[in-house]
Amino acid sequence: MYSFKNDYSEGAHPSILQALMETNLVQEDGYGGDQFTKSAIELIKKQLGSDKADVHLLAGGTQTNLISISAFLRPHEAAIAASTGHIFTHETGAIEATGHKIISVETKAGKLTPADVEKVLQDHPDEHMVKPRLVYISNSTEIGTIYKKQELTDLHHCCKKHHLLLFMDGARLGSALCSSQNDLELKEIASLVDAFYIGGTKNGALLGEALVLCDDVLKEDFRYHMKQKGALLAKGRLLGIQFQVLFQNQLYWELATHANQMADLLRRELQEAGYSFLADSPTNQIFPILSNELIEQLERKYGFHIWEKVDDHNTAIRLVTSWATKEEEVLAFIEDIKRKSII
Amino acid sequence: MYSFKNDYSEGAHPSILQALMETNLVQEDGYGGDQFTKSAIELIKKQLGSDKADVHLLAGGTQTNLISISAFLRPHEAAIAASTGHIFTHETGAIEATGHKIISVETKAGKLTPADVEKVLQDHPDEHMVKPRLVYISNSTEIGTIYKKQELTDLHHCCKKHHLLLFMDGARLGSALCSSQNDLELKEIASLVDAFYIGGTKNGALLGEALVLCDDVLKEDFRYHMKQKGALLAKGRLLGIQFQVLFQNQLYWELATHANQMADLLRRELQEAGYSFLADSPTNQIFPILSNELIEQLERKYGFHIWEKVDDHNTAIRLVTSWATKEEEVLAFIEDIKRKSII
Amino acid sequence: MYSFKNDYSEGAHPSILQALMETNLVQEDGYGGDQFTKSAIELIKKQLGSDKADVHLLAGGTQTNLISISAFLRPHEAAIAASTGHIFTHETGAIEATGHKIISVETKAGKLTPADVEKVLQDHPDEHMVKPRLVYISNSTEIGTIYKKQELTDLHHCCKKHHLLLFMDGARLGSALCSSQNDLELKEIASLVDAFYIGGTKNGALLGEALVLCDDVLKEDFRYHMKQKGALLAKGRLLGIQFQVLFQNQLYWELATHANQMADLLRRELQEAGYSFLADSPTNQIFPILSNELIEQLERKYGFHIWEKVDDHNTAIRLVTSWATKEEEVLAFIEDIKRKSII
Amino acid sequence: MYSFKNDYSEGAHPSILQALMETNLVQEDGYGGDQFTKSAIELIKKQLGSDKADVHLLAGGTQTNLISISAFLRPHEAAIAASTGHIFTHETGAIEATGHKIISVETKAGKLTPADVEKVLQDHPDEHMVKPRLVYISNSTEIGTIYKKQELTDLHHCCKKHHLLLFMDGARLGSALCSSQNDLELKEIASLVDAFYIGGTKNGALLGEALVLCDDVLKEDFRYHMKQKGALLAKGRLLGIQFQVLFQNQLYWELATHANQMADLLRRELQEAGYSFLADSPTNQIFPILSNELIEQLERKYGFHIWEKVDDHNTAIRLVTSWATKEEEVLAFIEDIKRKSII
Repeated sequence: MYSFKNDYSEGAHPSILQALMETNLVQEDGYGGDQFTKSAIELIKKQLGSDKADVHLLAGGTQTNLISISAFLRPHEAAIAASTGHIFTHETGAIEATGHKIISVETKAGKLTPADVEKVLQDHPDEHMVKPRLVYISNSTEIGTIYKKQELTDLHHCCKKHHLLLFMDGARLGSALCSSQNDLELKEIASLVDAFYIGGTKNGALLGEALVLCDDVLKEDFRYHMKQKGALLAKGRLLGIQFQVLFQNQLYWELATHANQMADLLRRELQEAGYSFLADSPTNQIFPILSNELIEQLERKYGFHIWEKVDDHNTAIRLVTSWATKEEEVLAFIEDIKRKSII
Repeated sequence: MYSFKNDYSEGAHPSILQALMETNLVQEDGYGGDQFTKSAIELIKKQLGSDKADVHLLAGGTQTNLISISAFLRPHEAAIAASTGHIFTHETGAIEATGHKIISVETKAGKLTPADVEKVLQDHPDEHMVKPRLVYISNSTEIGTIYKKQELTDLHHCCKKHHLLLFMDGARLGSALCSSQNDLELKEIASLVDAFYIGGTKNGALLGEALVLCDDVLKEDFRYHMKQKGALLAKGRLLGIQFQVLFQNQLYWELATHANQMADLLRRELQEAGYSFLADSPTNQIFPILSNELIEQLERKYGFHIWEKVDDHNTAIRLVTSWATKEEEVLAFIEDIKRKSII
Repeated sequence: MYSFKNDYSEGAHPSILQALMETNLVQEDGYGGDQFTKSAIELIKKQLGSDKADVHLLAGGTQTNLISISAFLRPHEAAIAASTGHIFTHETGAIEATGHKIISVETKAGKLTPADVEKVLQDHPDEHMVKPRLVYISNSTEIGTIYKKQELTDLHHCCKKHHLLLFMDGARLGSALCSSQNDLELKEIASLVDAFYIGGTKNGALLGEALVLCDDVLKEDFRYHMKQKGALLAKGRLLGIQFQVLFQNQLYWELATHANQMADLLRRELQEAGYSFLADSPTNQIFPILSNELIEQLERKYGFHIWEKVDDHNTAIRLVTSWATKEEEVLAFIEDIKRKSII
Repeated sequence: MYSFKNDYSEGAHPSILQALMETNLVQEDGYGGDQFTKSAIELIKKQLGSDKADVHLLAGGTQTNLISISAFLRPHEAAIAASTGHIFTHETGAIEATGHKIISVETKAGKLTPADVEKVLQDHPDEHMVKPRLVYISNSTEIGTIYKKQELTDLHHCCKKHHLLLFMDGARLGSALCSSQNDLELKEIASLVDAFYIGGTKNGALLGEALVLCDDVLKEDFRYHMKQKGALLAKGRLLGIQFQVLFQNQLYWELATHANQMADLLRRELQEAGYSFLADSPTNQIFPILSNELIEQLERKYGFHIWEKVDDHNTAIRLVTSWATKEEEVLAFIEDIKRKSII
């Protein structure tokens, strides 16, 4: 049984474990005061091409989303998100639990546009309603799509015009930026959004997201919020060491590229075999539509998520690849699909 | 420079890193659905001598405190804690941020008594005040003291009588239970409190606390609360593997015993050298009172926290030992103290 | 300029002011401990035909909604509401500010059905999502429609089956129960929902909503929640006196009946004059569709809300009647409409 | 039985009821958009001698405290209050329920000093603790004392120096400013604090507090917070009319002066009769120490609160006077005390 269920099925890239071993008995200060964290932050700033942003290392995506958004907003302010947005659907009301409404918008392909945002603003004119203040996007999105440079630039201008914060959930930012369709650079993102994060958990780390605060106002006292929500790890070194490894030799981008290549291979072969897809996702999540019989066969040998019923005979599944996905398993899967039988 | 600053200065016990290596490429379900987490939970239940409790693995102490207490209480209910309690002083208002007041009590030695609790109840008679509902204690306490079996039993009866929940912060439970003065067993704790946790971060893990829910009502839907607060790690295996290692061969108790032995050695030698202590702490934190001159000397070679000014010439410092503390460094420290000079 | 903008444009029914005058210098205990509040609660219980419910008097609708829902739910639980529901659209995120997500459902006519509720339950299967726990309905709804006995009974059974609480916002309950299409009695509501309230503000009081807690579990400690949210008025007598007046001689129902009669008159005449309506609302809010030219004319002489653009030439407006609406003004309005011109 | 229990035992000053009568059927916009509210706000600004402050009318003290403080603070920020402060003891954790810790300070006479504030700042140096950001004081305090001009000026400078907000709970501001010992003017308060309120409920209104926002930053979007917490009354006119009456002919100050005169009379006579007091309170709350036997006698004829046991034979009681207190009842009470017997 080989799993294409998600991009967090394995542990960490071996060089991370190696670094944990090598540094294990060095004594360091707690709570992110260690040399590894400092060094990781410097490496990330170098990638950003600027010393202006603040970088904080956190443990996971939901944690990063809830701490950031609750730190950024006043009590009456709300976030705008696609109805497929992770914060709206898959975080157990984490944002609302900090007191903030999420205004959801039905979108094509999981992406928000300036028109979506402006419609929300028109619908929220006065103090009898929440005040929209932050636009939450994810890149890649929950359905594997990505924001092109022009799209993000348009959103940026829309947000500036309307005094809105733009926040990018980058749990799968590696895969987005390494996609063959991508035309955005990391440093451009830093100039187009107010805050974003670089996801480690889904790209080779045991756990960890690097939050980048671009807007000066958002930086103030941020560590207080991390501590208050339980996100300042006593052994902050665990995060520091991992991001140090991921960014000191471009490993982060290599791992994402591998994940994408494995997804590209699956996509290309499935297309050639005549299958269509639920969405045009150029990243490490693909959503092929297969017959129910074939799905039943595949489930005997592979793990994956049933995504959405398409009609009485066909269903879209989700296949996710990662830094750890083995090409031989991808090829075996393709062969099984082509044979339409597992035996 | 050798640090006695805290018990989280190093990484993890080597056998934990070894297990992370060995299991690294095994594919597992996320969010605690992996075999390692299941196995760790079984091992902990075996130590508890009962299958009745629910066990959840979380990343850190503040996180565990805030998720538990906010899950246990209704909006008008409050926690009672010693004024030295970690939730009252060192968690950036984490509990209040979830909506609950902490009623603090000045105590001797950081420990709450039934009389303390009953005084609070008398002072909170009606709906113009919060309703005390949960008693928070830590074992060992923030000043290194421990609860004896009779003390905990008395608190248990007091809480039952007044319909209060009893919650034990066990960030340093290993050191408490391995103390030479301890007369409590782990399984007794499980029958005397409604919930408690077994701290991993300060006893050999990279991160991790094992929360034990003893009261049936508290168990319901607990994973929802973990997810909502960002505590369900995608790679939950990271916690599972660590607690599996800590509890499959009694490693947890061995590590705590080592930490205590190192503290015992420090304490004994300092006593013999004529020093007194701020508190009688039989665990891995000790608070010797030294002259300011000596402290200044020691700071050149050792890391530790200045705890509290005692008089114009003397100050209490905090020395913390851990599973990783080296006996040779303890002996060197003792020698330096005896010589009252570093060079 | 005569206003049909809402049902809170005037002060209180004169007999309420009279009672305030007469009782003004009687000394009473504060915070609802006064004889008037006690007597009002007894009168309401008599109307409910049962002594079992708890009744609390609060100041306004948003306050009652937020205190009730936050008192009823645990942190991970959510409310289900129509997307037109007052708590979802017009309370500035009051429910989310207490930590709870509202799951909204697109509905016909502003009313939830068991099918709507069950669809939400299917979409929320596990701890990665909030747990639906409370169904919020309003009667009459925000668009003037009402729940028939069978509809409410069906919702009741659906909620019982799925362990959901059923909560009815009755800000305009008077108008709903006095509608010519209504077949529900007050005491039936008390047996079909877990909690509801009887709105005073929009039916003759200066301010005040009478919350009825039917479910025993919901009753516990409710006054703590009122106090915590600032809803225990020092001079609780102000609410007591008003509800005493409203319920001692069926005044409450008389006032609602008058409001409905005025709406009926408007509706009938508009229908006869050939106008259609946005919704079939048999209560004190009606939504006729008029030409933009006519609306412009009417605005010179009458106050009302522009509700929704229907097409390029026509728009629905909202007309609201109340206990204070004067028949002569209604007749004048009708005449103006028929003439299609004001001057 | 005549009650000296509190200053909200009666209804409203008759001229308020008169105004409610006279304006009752005037149609007005809701939620504070009415002419009465606008006029009341203008009258209050005139008293402040400036047009710069924003004024909002709210229903009660707890409501005003919780909305203000939660609107002013970011999630990690805390309030500092005397341990006798109303928000700390008698509001059912209302502030904590909005997410903010209150740091309490033991004080003399219920008043905070710069030294108190600076001690708190020293004790909260970093992100492991909440960040003190707002100083809450009440004038008169919960034990009837008042802030002198120098004391408030010193606090003002201390707050400015440390970037702290200064917030004054004025539930009994009338009595404070009309005290014979007072040397503060209303307009001075407006220049020394960042926000404060002028209590109506305890000085002649049915309900109502006029919140004055002096600091420009605090003004932004304040009505959103009012709405979100259920404080925007549909019939906002109810508050507007009352404050219009209270401030159009200096009635507010006359009523407070009467309350103080009645307390002065009680205080003077009790002093002459040889009784001492728990606190030196020059306002409408006094705390004489009486023998337990005498208290028992008095309770047959008068209502008052038992405040605090002084020794085995003597107890302090609280006597509160108000705009409605009758001189003849005060004189009767004095006579009864002097006779040391009721019958």
